[in-house]
Amino acid sequence: MALEITKELLNNVEDMIQNQKDAALSELFADIHHADIAEVLDELSFDDAVYIIRLLDSETTSDVLMEVDEEVRENIFEQLSTKEIAEEIDELDTDDAADVIAELPEERKQEVIQQIEDREHAKEIVELLRYDEDSAGGLMAKELVKVNENWNVLTCVKQMRQQAEYVTRVHSIYVIDDEGKLKGRLSLKDLLMASTRAKISDVYIPNVDFVNVNDKAEEVANIMRKYDLEAIPVIDELGVLVGRITIDDIVDVIKEEAEKDYQLAAGITQDVDSEDSIWDLTKARLPWLFLGLIGGVGAFLIMEGFHESFSENAVLFFFTPLIAAMAGNVGVQSSAIIVQGLANDDVKGSIKNRLIKEMLLAALNGFMLALVLFAFIWGYSGEVQKAFAISVSLIVVIIVAGLIGTFIPLFLHKRGIDPAIATGPFITTSNDIFGILIYFTIAKMIIGF
Amino acid sequence: MALEITKELLNNVEDMIQNQKDAALSELFADIHHADIAEVLDELSFDDAVYIIRLLDSETTSDVLMEVDEEVRENIFEQLSTKEIAEEIDELDTDDAADVIAELPEERKQEVIQQIEDREHAKEIVELLRYDEDSAGGLMAKELVKVNENWNVLTCVKQMRQQAEYVTRVHSIYVIDDEGKLKGRLSLKDLLMASTRAKISDVYIPNVDFVNVNDKAEEVANIMRKYDLEAIPVIDELGVLVGRITIDDIVDVIKEEAEKDYQLAAGITQDVDSEDSIWDLTKARLPWLFLGLIGGVGAFLIMEGFHESFSENAVLFFFTPLIAAMAGNVGVQSSAIIVQGLANDDVKGSIKNRLIKEMLLAALNGFMLALVLFAFIWGYSGEVQKAFAISVSLIVVIIVAGLIGTFIPLFLHKRGIDPAIATGPFITTSNDIFGILIYFTIAKMIIGF
Repeated sequence: MALEITKELLNNVEDMIQNQKDAALSELFADIHHADIAEVLDELSFDDAVYIIRLLDSETTSDVLMEVDEEVRENIFEQLSTKEIAEEIDELDTDDAADVIAELPEERKQEVIQQIEDREHAKEIVELLRYDEDSAGGLMAKELVKVNENWNVLTCVKQMRQQAEYVTRVHSIYVIDDEGKLKGRLSLKDLLMASTRAKISDVYIPNVDFVNVNDKAEEVANIMRKYDLEAIPVIDELGVLVGRITIDDIVDVIKEEAEKDYQLAAGITQDVDSEDSIWDLTKARLPWLFLGLIGGVGAFLIMEGFHESFSENAVLFFFTPLIAAMAGNVGVQSSAIIVQGLANDDVKGSIKNRLIKEMLLAALNGFMLALVLFAFIWGYSGEVQKAFAISVSLIVVIIVAGLIGTFIPLFLHKRGIDPAIATGPFITTSNDIFGILIYFTIAKMIIGF
Repeated sequence: MALEITKELLNNVEDMIQNQKDAALSELFADIHHADIAEVLDELSFDDAVYIIRLLDSETTSDVLMEVDEEVRENIFEQLSTKEIAEEIDELDTDDAADVIAELPEERKQEVIQQIEDREHAKEIVELLRYDEDSAGGLMAKELVKVNENWNVLTCVKQMRQQAEYVTRVHSIYVIDDEGKLKGRLSLKDLLMASTRAKISDVYIPNVDFVNVNDKAEEVANIMRKYDLEAIPVIDELGVLVGRITIDDIVDVIKEEAEKDYQLAAGITQDVDSEDSIWDLTKARLPWLFLGLIGGVGAFLIMEGFHESFSENAVLFFFTPLIAAMAGNVGVQSSAIIVQGLANDDVKGSIKNRLIKEMLLAALNGFMLALVLFAFIWGYSGEVQKAFAISVSLIVVIIVAGLIGTFIPLFLHKRGIDPAIATGPFITTSNDIFGILIYFTIAKMIIGF
């Protein structure tokens, strides 16, 4: 069912391009879904990809261009003229068109926009470009079917047939008033079942979910997921219907958000995947590793600061990795739960209550772990005081790590910063430092060195 | 638009329940979306929730029951009789009905199934229960609209009006042959535009995406996301159309998969969120923390094994947290990229090539970090040999950590085990141990103690 990209297929395609077997190529690609064509292009050289783009008709290639890797698309566009790019834009839905133009370098943007044949289309795209890409306005498309509440069903169906030609998927037909304000919706099913002479105003459902142009993408995703919606109308500050977001875009948003959070938690700063070049992967991974290095140096300096007590208290130093590791693990767990809760809008109640809950949880977990550790150290070394010092430090370190892991994401969130930044290496490195500092301080107090 | 669950609202509801103001309650809930009613029930006591469920009609409450927290649903069902549960099941779509019944304890399952009024419905549910819950069969619903290829459009529309009464959302109308095998599809839009006398076999689109009952849920999600589908038909081993999966269920699958991977990477073993009890959170978090504790003890034992060299080589021990932290960070990054790549089906090529790529990447990153570290240690302590030993160890440790982080998920994946298990604390703990062991071994070789 899905096309399998085999080495054989790719070699075939590359040969045909080499020998300019255009008819054969067109025939081959005619039956392949554009998402699969895009996968093929991802594997070809940029020149070969451009060859295919120029060969196939714009209706197909515009869809293909939306599906190829961002890097491949960038390179293809570099080789296409602004006229050729404009031709592709003409075929795209407004939301995709806006996304594509936003990716272009500044100088080319203007040129491309001016060469778009359908001026109405160009006007809509320019409107969409004004919105923040992470908002409902940045996600929406202008393509939708709307009918006036004063029409009857017959007129509605006629209008619909005209408008629907441009709309890929009609879910709901939106009902507006004379000022363009959203009043309600109709489903195709309702329309099929209604009498042709009925008035729209008697038939439509006034209860319609909607979002505002300025709502955040993640918020829109949560609403559509909660109410099982497949499309949602977008209104502006005046209540005027200005666009529509469909579930396929939201599915991508959900996937991309999840991947971004996952990568941040692993300390990867850019959107990379396993197929990227070593250079790109390095650029994404090195920054956080460097942060970890600095943290490690910080740990070294702290330990060195306590080094006079070394000879009699070597065992303390041998347990430093354990303390640091536990601080890191607890911090990561706490921050992950909070970040996920914030993303799902699950986090209610005051910050104070949450910190208290985390403190109790950490104290409980810390106590159980410290008990086990105490038993081990005492049994292994026979030194009760040291076992006690290390175990007590463990509890304190775990409580502090849990509080840091809970508090920092909440703090960032309240300031409007993505809390997912405070996961992964950021948390583990800072918790390592705090953990080791607290550890030695408490051990010093208990043992007295 | 979305209902805001205020303390005021909850108190109101609780009061009305207390005073059995049924009419007022029914009126209040009449205008609220079932997903919002579910949120209210999540905040009420179980007794109050059961009161509301018994008060409202089954058509509403069945939808509400699908949206409440699993724990709340479990408790509500414990208080309902099997007859009452069967009444709810009668109102649910087959996929939701099967999910709900699967959650019940064994003894109750049979009783409930036998009390379902609509025997056809019961039969379909039993069929669905046979499938693995993580497969297409486990996700699909039996509710769909299908027409025979030999009919004409008029018959089709008549049939559709009958069948569509039971189908919440009609996307495509599936076309089958006399044996029930899937032949193609029609969209409502096509149907509206076609002449009533045309034959279905002339009008339908033979090119239809589908999945098999045994395909994995994640695979289905990838296909629907790739081809921007809103619903996909499911066929059995004979090619017979047996069910349909809609995008809203896939959106939930994508979200749940992402959350599961994220939590595994943070070392949380069960599906918990910030609102759960301290006890549930402890059960989910403690196991991995305990693993970290064991790892820390392992690190202690390794360092203790080298302790004779302590006095002259204290600085080595002070850098142990740095080495362990870097090993952990690199391992987490590597495993995250691989796990994400495997989930998105991006990982191609041989394992050998991938390990070589990771080795080069780790060597490159490790070298740059080691250079900085060397400069620091030399500048700070003046001891060239020790600086060299520690820096070289860092490079080796990073390479090994990267290889472990890349190899283990791939290995698990090939064995059919979820690679996401090998992220988070599992990787950091094992890399800590390996890292410290390699570190001291190399340092010993270079410095010669």
